[in-house]
Amino acid sequence: MSERYDIAIVGSGPAGLSAALNAKIRNKSFIIFGNKNLSSKIEKAPGINNYLGFPNISGNDLKIKFQEHIKEMEIEIAEYRIDSIYAMGSHFVLMSNDKSFEATSIILATGIEYTKPLVGELEFLGRGVSYCATCDANFYKKKRVAILGYNKEAERDANYVSEIASEVYYVPMYKEPYNINDSITIIKDKPKKILNESNNRTLVLENNEIEVDGIFIIKDSISPAQLVPGLLIEDDHISVDRYMKTNIKGCFAAGDCVGKPYQYIKAAGEGNIASLSAVKYLDELKKK
Amino acid sequence: MSERYDIAIVGSGPAGLSAALNAKIRNKSFIIFGNKNLSSKIEKAPGINNYLGFPNISGNDLKIKFQEHIKEMEIEIAEYRIDSIYAMGSHFVLMSNDKSFEATSIILATGIEYTKPLVGELEFLGRGVSYCATCDANFYKKKRVAILGYNKEAERDANYVSEIASEVYYVPMYKEPYNINDSITIIKDKPKKILNESNNRTLVLENNEIEVDGIFIIKDSISPAQLVPGLLIEDDHISVDRYMKTNIKGCFAAGDCVGKPYQYIKAAGEGNIASLSAVKYLDELKKK
Repeated sequence: MSERYDIAIVGSGPAGLSAALNAKIRNKSFIIFGNKNLSSKIEKAPGINNYLGFPNISGNDLKIKFQEHIKEMEIEIAEYRIDSIYAMGSHFVLMSNDKSFEATSIILATGIEYTKPLVGELEFLGRGVSYCATCDANFYKKKRVAILGYNKEAERDANYVSEIASEVYYVPMYKEPYNINDSITIIKDKPKKILNESNNRTLVLENNEIEVDGIFIIKDSISPAQLVPGLLIEDDHISVDRYMKTNIKGCFAAGDCVGKPYQYIKAAGEGNIASLSAVKYLDELKKK
Repeated sequence: MSERYDIAIVGSGPAGLSAALNAKIRNKSFIIFGNKNLSSKIEKAPGINNYLGFPNISGNDLKIKFQEHIKEMEIEIAEYRIDSIYAMGSHFVLMSNDKSFEATSIILATGIEYTKPLVGELEFLGRGVSYCATCDANFYKKKRVAILGYNKEAERDANYVSEIASEVYYVPMYKEPYNINDSITIIKDKPKKILNESNNRTLVLENNEIEVDGIFIIKDSISPAQLVPGLLIEDDHISVDRYMKTNIKGCFAAGDCVGKPYQYIKAAGEGNIASLSAVKYLDELKKK
């Protein structure tokens, strides 16, 4: 049986990192999912003047400060992209491709979804559209598949699917170089919408239309509502109270994904609250 | 007529400072009341490990980082202790002894009151018990007054009152040296409660009872409910929503005074939110 963590933190921006610091200090077993490079968003910020303690710091320098802090606290980021999370009542199961993780409580710190869903994407999700190649590739044995890749990691998925499907079209949403199997057809174009007609799905691009049996969309992040079935969303953000509790028992959230303002120090502050709320939740469970 | 600030920030802990940074960045006219030494609480913190970006920093070093940041942003702390705040509808009036300040919006970042009120203190406030020497000393011409001083600044008040009253007893709640007029009687003892019998107030101490006409209590901070009449308090904290709005229009709050956890990064994050909410409030007023 796999280890059951006290807390699983999804996201390695300021909210997730701040949550991890407190989980560590409070001696909880935890895992933080994200990217060792933390967040592509923070890197791009030019000058930040309102993170109290760091006057006029660049996003990149602040990122380095954050990395030094978690290194000092011996916190390692687990580089898995979580595709789906299931609330089982007593605990949560977090899926990343073929791997699964268990945790008693979770903290969602997924940031905000910059990639808006395509027209038709959410409508046909689970009916010819999928976010997880490892989960669903087997449905497309000897069939035609299109893969919309928003990052280089999607190449692994494309290569894997190409071993199963008969034809794979790969639409990269990032710059070259591409490192994919020769059997895959690369299409450089901009996706517009997804149509679903009888047994065919059509990925409509600006200059092309690809008719396939299935479409995989591999993004940096999945919207929280898709990630955690049953999670309450209000005004496009995860609904939380002042203790960063969501509507699901044991599930907390912090940072941009819970609402504006989108600011580092606000996210870090909320990560702190969410983590201490999770600790309190765990301590109360033990008493029962 | 005195200047009317866009925002008045009450308190110079992490919440107040973070609010000030954002007021500055957003080009609002503002004043921040507090202490150039920031907060006596932060100085006393030994090691802080969960202010993201500063691994294992002492409270004193973090204080210096904060001071450097506001210096860099050319933010000056106005060293006045605000005694009372009145909501006038279109603006607020903030009183500090004989001085008054006006602001269109306010941010309360007063921390939490560590000094619990004495038995009888709130009951007899305004009826023989006062927090403001400059405001009320004239009621005690040629009368007997006791002054309970929680900090060295109270000495100024004691000296002032001694010029008006016939007898002044000074109960210092801090260590020597004391720098007060010779006419004042110093009583080193621990206050227990206040009794109010017909025309006499009695300050009951552990080993003494002082019968006087009036009692001044000079503390570091006044509880928010006393500070702002009409402010909604819940579970001993200022009641706010996720945007740090209180029940009073134009009045926001952040940091320890709005609730647990009492953590620097949480306070700084909330100061950020409160400030941006005040900016939004001001911008919407202008549109009208």
